[in-house]
Parts: sequence; C-alpha cells; structure tokens
Amino acid sequence: MNQHADQALVLVEENAPTTRCRILETAERFFREIGYQKTTVADIAKTLRMSPANVYRFFESKKAINEAVVERVTRDIEALIASIAARTGMTASARLAEIVRALHHDCLERCQDNPRIHEMVEAAMTESWNVCRHHVERISDVLVRVVTEGARTGEFVVEDPDMAAQCVHVAIVRYCHPVLVSQYPNAPAPPLETMIAFLQRALGARDPGRAGTP
Amino acid sequence: MNQHADQALVLVEENAPTTRCRILETAERFFREIGYQKTTVADIAKTLRMSPANVYRFFESKKAINEAVVERVTRDIEALIASIAARTGMTASARLAEIVRALHHDCLERCQDNPRIHEMVEAAMTESWNVCRHHVERISDVLVRVVTEGARTGEFVVEDPDMAAQCVHVAIVRYCHPVLVSQYPNAPAPPLETMIAFLQRALGARDPGRAGTP
Repeated sequence: MNQHADQALVLVEENAPTTRCRILETAERFFREIGYQKTTVADIAKTLRMSPANVYRFFESKKAINEAVVERVTRDIEALIASIAARTGMTASARLAEIVRALHHDCLERCQDNPRIHEMVEAAMTESWNVCRHHVERISDVLVRVVTEGARTGEFVVEDPDMAAQCVHVAIVRYCHPVLVSQYPNAPAPPLETMIAFLQRALGARDPGRAGTP
Repeated sequence: MNQHADQALVLVEENAPTTRCRILETAERFFREIGYQKTTVADIAKTLRMSPANVYRFFESKKAINEAVVERVTRDIEALIASIAARTGMTASARLAEIVRALHHDCLERCQDNPRIHEMVEAAMTESWNVCRHHVERISDVLVRVVTEGARTGEFVVEDPDMAAQCVHVAIVRYCHPVLVSQYPNAPAPPLETMIAFLQRALGARDPGRAGTP
C-alpha cells in the first residue's frame, strides 16, 4: 500500500508541470475568448475536469494565473530578441533594427489575433505591475547590450550607451506597446523602417541604411 | 411687441457664446469630478438651471459636448506650441526642445490635476477619433514647420524634414500621450532632457546640448 501511495505521489509530482501548463493554456484560451474579467477559476477547472481547489494548488488566484500567462508570452519574445542580440556576423545597427522589428511584429500579431489582449494587459499592468516592469527591463537589458557593443566597436557614437538604449526603447513605444497598438491602431506613425533609420542616426551610426554586414 | 421680441432674440443671440461656454465649463467640471461616463446632460442642465432641451440647442449630444471640451483644451496647447515655433532669436533646435517640453508639461499637469482625464480621453478616442486625429495633426504641423526651417538653414541635416518631424512626434509619445502619462506614470523612461538631446542628434543638430542662440 505504501509503495502504491509513493508511486501515486511520484505520478502527481511528475504530472505537476503538465497540469500547470494545461491550466495556463486553458486560462489563456478563456482570456482570449471571453476576456480576463469574465473568466473564473471555476470555468478553468471545469474545462480541465478538476476541482477549483486543485487549480488553487498551482495558482493562488486568477491574478497569479494571469501573471504566469503574461510571463510565458513575454518570455518567448524576450528569448527571440536575446538571440538576435547574440548573432554574430551582423552589425550592432542591423541587430538593433532586427530587434525593433521583432518587438513590433510580436506585438502586432498578438494584438490582431486577440482583440481581448488589452484586457489581459490592462489587468497585468494594474494588478501585477512588477511582471510588466520586469518584462520591460529585460527588453531594455537586450537593447543596452547591443548599443554598448556598438559603442565599444565605434559603430555607434554615444556618450552614455545605457541612456541611449533607454531612449531607443522609449521612442519605439508607439510600435511595441500593446495598449497603443491594440487600442489606437489608426493613430498616425511613420513606417517602422523610417523610424529605425531615424534611431540609428540618433546613435551616430554611419550610413545606417546600408548597415547589415560588419 | 415685435420690437421686444427682436430685442429678446438679440439678447439670446448675444448670450449664445456665453451659454455655450458655461455649458462647456460645467461639463468639464462634471467630467473631472464624477467622470465622463457618469455625467448626464440632465446633470449639466440642472446645474445651469436650464432645461436639457436648452443644452441640446447648443450641443446635440454628450459626445458633442466632450468633443467641444477636448477641442477647447487642445486649442490652448496648440496655440502655445505654435507661438514657440514662431519665436525669433532662437535656433530651430531650441524651439523644438521648448515645444516638446510644453507638450510634456501640459500633459503632465492635466493628468495630475485630473485623475478622470483618462475616461474623457478614452471617450474622445473611441467616439470622436477625428477630434483627436486633428489635434495630433496640428501638433505634427508645428513640428514639421520647425524641422523644415532647421533643415533649410542647415541647422538640421535630414533628407525628409516632414518624415523626420513625424519621427520626433512618435518618439515623444511616452511623454505626451494622456493614456501613457496618466495610466502608467511609473513606467521607466529617460529624463525628458536626455530624450530631447537624443532626438536633436537624430536630426543631425550639431552640438545640440549648447543650442539656444542662433
């Protein structure tokens, strides 16, 4: 009997990551389909044929579920831009451009596919500001890395690479902030490539239009 | 009788701008104090001791009142930045900096004084997008004027002054967009002066830090 109980425990423990993932996938689907506000933990539990108490074993609240959903979503784009930043055989200028494009396309895709994303993001920004802040900081870290490297090799001419990277980050908010992209898609803005060239210029990049190879 | 009726009509006509203004002032106070959504035309009429029908003689809907309120508010800042753009004895770079400061301080002041502004702006952006778009376009026009002048005198080195001005405009959204300034005041951003210097640099301004006199 003891052995059976142990085996059952092992099974539960082994399935824990899977259960966690299933809860998050289901929650994300509900958030997309009926919206964050209208989704209840009971809905999620029912769909997964488990008790709400079991969901609460993994996440203490709906807020905690949303935080995990947001974190999962943001980790993907963070990994992508980090890999672009680490690419060899590309100038810092070209990598910066590629990162901005990736951030923009990720945001655009997510907002177009998901009209209720604003509600999730709003909930995260209101209830879980730290999750959002950390995501923003991780993007900034990647931008700082690329600008610093460009400054070191003389490709960029900036006094304070850290601050210059923050300026780039803030300047692209119109193209990468879910609230602006999802709520005001018709607000006027220059084409992204024009904006990228403008920012490369602010970094003192020479001939940014032709930057691509080191 | 006819003469009296004429005089009465003259009085009504003469008072029309005043009545219009009083409606807008009262509406703005209600929007600030209890919020746009909760304010009714009946509230506004009651405060002014007039019938709702009389309010509707001036504005056909609450939406039309909000549009006029937003227009009044935005006209002030538009006039201010246009006057900065027209100043003599100042470089284009310094005027551009002053315009960005004015836009930021106006937004900051309005948002700090008025926690419900987001609701008004949201209503305007959702229901009356054209009013917002025209405001944004008028700001762009002023920026284009200054950048074009700076390019003409050789102070700025830009290929397309119009597009460069649009880039500046979009880059300052974090500092001048009521939604970002009022809803996410704690989002990280470089100091405004750092951002201004970064943008002057993107415009090819030489020694922007010391720009002030022509």
